[in-house]
Amino acid sequence: MIPSHVKIVEVGPRDGLQNEATPVSVEVKVALIDRLTAAGLPVIESGSFVSPKWVPQMAASAEVLGAITRKPGVSYPVLTPNMQGLEAALAAGAEEVAVFGAASESFSQKNINCSIAESLDRFAPVIAHARSKGIKVRGYVSCVLGCPYEGEIAPLAVAQVAKRLADMGCYEISLGDTIGTGTPVKAQAMIASVAALLPVDMLAAHFHDTYGQALANILAVMEKGVAVVDSSVAGLGGCPYAKGAAGNVATEDLVYMLNGMGIKTGVDLAKLIDAGRFICDAIGRTTGSKVAKALN
Amino acid sequence: MIPSHVKIVEVGPRDGLQNEATPVSVEVKVALIDRLTAAGLPVIESGSFVSPKWVPQMAASAEVLGAITRKPGVSYPVLTPNMQGLEAALAAGAEEVAVFGAASESFSQKNINCSIAESLDRFAPVIAHARSKGIKVRGYVSCVLGCPYEGEIAPLAVAQVAKRLADMGCYEISLGDTIGTGTPVKAQAMIASVAALLPVDMLAAHFHDTYGQALANILAVMEKGVAVVDSSVAGLGGCPYAKGAAGNVATEDLVYMLNGMGIKTGVDLAKLIDAGRFICDAIGRTTGSKVAKALN
Repeated sequence: MIPSHVKIVEVGPRDGLQNEATPVSVEVKVALIDRLTAAGLPVIESGSFVSPKWVPQMAASAEVLGAITRKPGVSYPVLTPNMQGLEAALAAGAEEVAVFGAASESFSQKNINCSIAESLDRFAPVIAHARSKGIKVRGYVSCVLGCPYEGEIAPLAVAQVAKRLADMGCYEISLGDTIGTGTPVKAQAMIASVAALLPVDMLAAHFHDTYGQALANILAVMEKGVAVVDSSVAGLGGCPYAKGAAGNVATEDLVYMLNGMGIKTGVDLAKLIDAGRFICDAIGRTTGSKVAKALN
Repeated sequence: MIPSHVKIVEVGPRDGLQNEATPVSVEVKVALIDRLTAAGLPVIESGSFVSPKWVPQMAASAEVLGAITRKPGVSYPVLTPNMQGLEAALAAGAEEVAVFGAASESFSQKNINCSIAESLDRFAPVIAHARSKGIKVRGYVSCVLGCPYEGEIAPLAVAQVAKRLADMGCYEISLGDTIGTGTPVKAQAMIASVAALLPVDMLAAHFHDTYGQALANILAVMEKGVAVVDSSVAGLGGCPYAKGAAGNVATEDLVYMLNGMGIKTGVDLAKLIDAGRFICDAIGRTTGSKVAKALN
């Protein structure tokens, strides 16, 4: 039942760096993405076309997209929450974009200032326009295993948002345990709920390691057939809801587990660790990857 | 198949503190053990009756055993590698002891200066004498998923050492991934090999988190029926083979996962976190528990 091949979606340059306190220059972002490409990652989330007023760390995503060395077959998706973002991303040469919804009503209200239904209505034309240009769209659902404001989230709520995003044209749905409170049995129940409405090969696990549970949860959902996993080199990105706590699961630790299980990813662990060391040196932080620490 | 109840064996006061650089006073050790008792841990490894020449951190184990407040039903095992150690432990009032073997021939030679067979021969009279006094004996097997000197270890080698220890009178066999290189499929294969020779309810998982794999491995072996897990409060104990890297899996992170899965342990997570904070303050280190960091 466990997949023989897992596609890793590297989110460090966007999700990761966006949640780091240190601003990062275009040059460093480009160098990081190029190193991740060289390490064999098949998908590298590379920026966000939102107003720099809201996410200053993501300014200059167009410059980044223009300067990276794209490898054929590798995708470099960027977040595009609205039509302006999408137009800017298209102008910058984006070939894959992503929209970001939530499974929690209070999180949606506090994070993007509208209801879940309203956010989905806003995404509809963005997704439709991207699809009309032949651009792939990835859908994110946050708070799938818990919300900082309302606690537990019903698996059915996750499934309904995921289904809407798929119906609107997203080819893949990334299910995010934004606050990292998920545990294996609940992660499996959530996946089962979504997989009742959508093929499991459309689903990606996006699990944060805030409570140290990410790899166990990833193992648990792989046992249910999930074969796409999001992670962040060096564990870039903290948890905005628990100061000093971990955020994204480290790509190095994920690759180590998958290698040990004989699951193919195409990623070169040594080159990946080099990429992690590069960005940690650049922003002056310690790596969040235990593998990188142990092999240091 | 996953057990409904897991017995946690807290190894922080012995395995953990032995691998910390800072020496710890008898008073602090006693206070730590008493806090762990209050947190509801059913087994707390409390010392080691080895020559203080070799393990200076473990001097004064007799004083510690004499000063802790023992709670009925809770066990406080101590390591006794030889007859002198056992006699000293019995004199100090130990009610459970443990012996420590290896599944790797080179590790046995470098760590205790004799072959695996010789070490087992040495343990035989220790175990027999303890049993004759009505004292329970726990057996450890180290390097079950890899050795710092010879790499991969055959599951059959682990099973044979475990079987010998059980045949000699050990009631429980703790299978240690000493260097933390194990991954879930290999952990399951190792357990399957041992469980072919011994009942699975005699087996304990003792997994280090050096490569971040411990909780995933614990989940994997629980799926094979393992219901006893060793862990260390605050992740006390480093990895002597990778400077700065993590050692024992943190008890807080384990309890968080088991709580989330509805598996009963009898442990009070808040009191456990308090015990971890106490010892981290006392020895001036940062907690190795992500749960403790997130809930700080």
